[in-house]
Amino acid sequence: MTFPEVNLRAFTQNIFLAMGCSDAHAKLAADVLIRSDMRGIDSHGVARLSGYVRLWEKKRINATPNIRIVHETPTTATVDGDAGLGLVVAPFAMQIAIEKAEKYGSGWVAVRNSNHFGISGYHALMAVERNMIGYAMTNASPLVAPTFSNERMLGTNPMCYAFPAGKYPPVVVDMATSAAANGKLEIAQRAGKPVPEGWIQDTHGDFTTDPHALKKGGSLLPLGSDREHGSHKGFGLSATVDILSAVLSGANYGPWVPPFVSFLEPPADPVGLGIGHFLGAMRVDGFRPVDEFKANMDIWIQRFKDANRIDPDQPVIIPGEPELEAEADRAINGIPLVDAVVTDLDELAKRFGIAQLS
Amino acid sequence: MTFPEVNLRAFTQNIFLAMGCSDAHAKLAADVLIRSDMRGIDSHGVARLSGYVRLWEKKRINATPNIRIVHETPTTATVDGDAGLGLVVAPFAMQIAIEKAEKYGSGWVAVRNSNHFGISGYHALMAVERNMIGYAMTNASPLVAPTFSNERMLGTNPMCYAFPAGKYPPVVVDMATSAAANGKLEIAQRAGKPVPEGWIQDTHGDFTTDPHALKKGGSLLPLGSDREHGSHKGFGLSATVDILSAVLSGANYGPWVPPFVSFLEPPADPVGLGIGHFLGAMRVDGFRPVDEFKANMDIWIQRFKDANRIDPDQPVIIPGEPELEAEADRAINGIPLVDAVVTDLDELAKRFGIAQLS
Repeated sequence: MTFPEVNLRAFTQNIFLAMGCSDAHAKLAADVLIRSDMRGIDSHGVARLSGYVRLWEKKRINATPNIRIVHETPTTATVDGDAGLGLVVAPFAMQIAIEKAEKYGSGWVAVRNSNHFGISGYHALMAVERNMIGYAMTNASPLVAPTFSNERMLGTNPMCYAFPAGKYPPVVVDMATSAAANGKLEIAQRAGKPVPEGWIQDTHGDFTTDPHALKKGGSLLPLGSDREHGSHKGFGLSATVDILSAVLSGANYGPWVPPFVSFLEPPADPVGLGIGHFLGAMRVDGFRPVDEFKANMDIWIQRFKDANRIDPDQPVIIPGEPELEAEADRAINGIPLVDAVVTDLDELAKRFGIAQLS
Repeated sequence: MTFPEVNLRAFTQNIFLAMGCSDAHAKLAADVLIRSDMRGIDSHGVARLSGYVRLWEKKRINATPNIRIVHETPTTATVDGDAGLGLVVAPFAMQIAIEKAEKYGSGWVAVRNSNHFGISGYHALMAVERNMIGYAMTNASPLVAPTFSNERMLGTNPMCYAFPAGKYPPVVVDMATSAAANGKLEIAQRAGKPVPEGWIQDTHGDFTTDPHALKKGGSLLPLGSDREHGSHKGFGLSATVDILSAVLSGANYGPWVPPFVSFLEPPADPVGLGIGHFLGAMRVDGFRPVDEFKANMDIWIQRFKDANRIDPDQPVIIPGEPELEAEADRAINGIPLVDAVVTDLDELAKRFGIAQLS
């Protein structure tokens, strides 16, 4: 089924209001989720709404957080999210980074005591609107094993860099540091199809194509898949995200990161508070005039679009293009949701006594 | 043959002096190269010395550069390297980043009009000594094709993050954003051995195991190797390095980056000056007290070292450990050089009329 953006947005906002979020927080949290659906990243949009609700029911998400700065220099800060929705904590932190960048050229904010923050791209793009380079990352529930291990030690730990351009849309590099994001796995699970070798390993550390291997004790592999193809680099990137997001902020890191799913309890021996994010903004005109930078970004983009093609019908894809195409399509045709998600949202509506979507 | 560090250092310094570098520059440039050999990254040490000399002979490297800041805010700057050795330009820029971080919490410097800067880790570690997080990247001669293309558009564009720890040595994530670094290819070429599928593609865009495929018009593949295993992520990371290092600084980017080898001429239609770097430093105590951070880094490192092993004899490798092991070994046993490099260095000695190594 397909839903107009405006309906899905109103519905999502109402759920957050019913949880007790303030008007401003409900509006912002809904905006982050809907933006994800609009950009075609279905795994991080309203499909996750019931997950947030269940964590709130377990008192692991605080609907009325007192988000505050706990440590600060002119261009750095640590924010405590007070166990709030990452969907509101991260934009709060990014706003601080942007204000510091306005004044001093750059701003960097580490966040502790937060929860899942949706898509990294949303936060990084806040900076781009101000002619800044945006930077966003977060750690997440442990599903990925480091090279040479079969133990789940890291999340899919995404990192995002976003750059403004001129006549072209921004370049947005928004990527899980694992070989495959969890969303791709879920698609294969629903379709009952094998996944490519190199995405998952079983409990013995052997490649498996079983999309359900994670439930059987398997683990996701870092970007690079195996040592020979650079999985130690994917591990290194994921470690970087974990350290900047959590060791630097005072959040939980590595296998101590609390799981997103409510049926798994957080570790009994936490090393920090909640999960962690790291956000940053740098003013383009801290380095060169904005018009010069944008003109060169356009040359860069054009040149990469013109790169010689292996298949004449498949051009090089500029990072961020697929999301923009989805956004343009869904603005006209609405947001498609799979049946399981619609059922899930209908149950939420019943639980809170608000109007159903379908 | 194996050489004591001190001999190789004196020799290298003499070559730079013979090129006309100042005492301070010759000492610094030699330090960057020797540190690479000490850390076991043989491809970036004295093996490259004759390459720098040949670029200087072609007047593409300026031995007496006027390195200067051309644009600045309290926490950002753009440096023009005046076509100097990247080996001295990058430490100059990193020093500025560190001074800005001392004052304001963080510092970020984009560099244009530079040349090859050696190993990223050297520059990033300058910050670690000051209880800062260090960040270093550079673009490089185009050898890597973006996903869906068979055209060489990007360098192996390394990125490096370095984090101080407590009782453990620093965590240093220093990685080419291609599936395999050029140095690994050179080893296979010398040994006449095939390389794994997923490192290189031929002119048609098909995987090849021929280590000489680059000379036949092939290209290196981004980290991830193919679309299914996330090569678009490797491409995105490489693009990030290219944009931060060069579009932001005013250096050449993408296929316009001048080649390191002197027998290839730089493109006739440059889009900027020289090659570009991007360096940064963030004070740890801009986020939390240094002792707290270091204590948590130690827990992080210990926990990852203790991660369950697939092979009982192969523990998880913490990023930066192999380089430290090489450093400890070579401090005692000296630096091993292959015959071709020794011959190369002997020829340099003759050319400049200084004492030979062997």
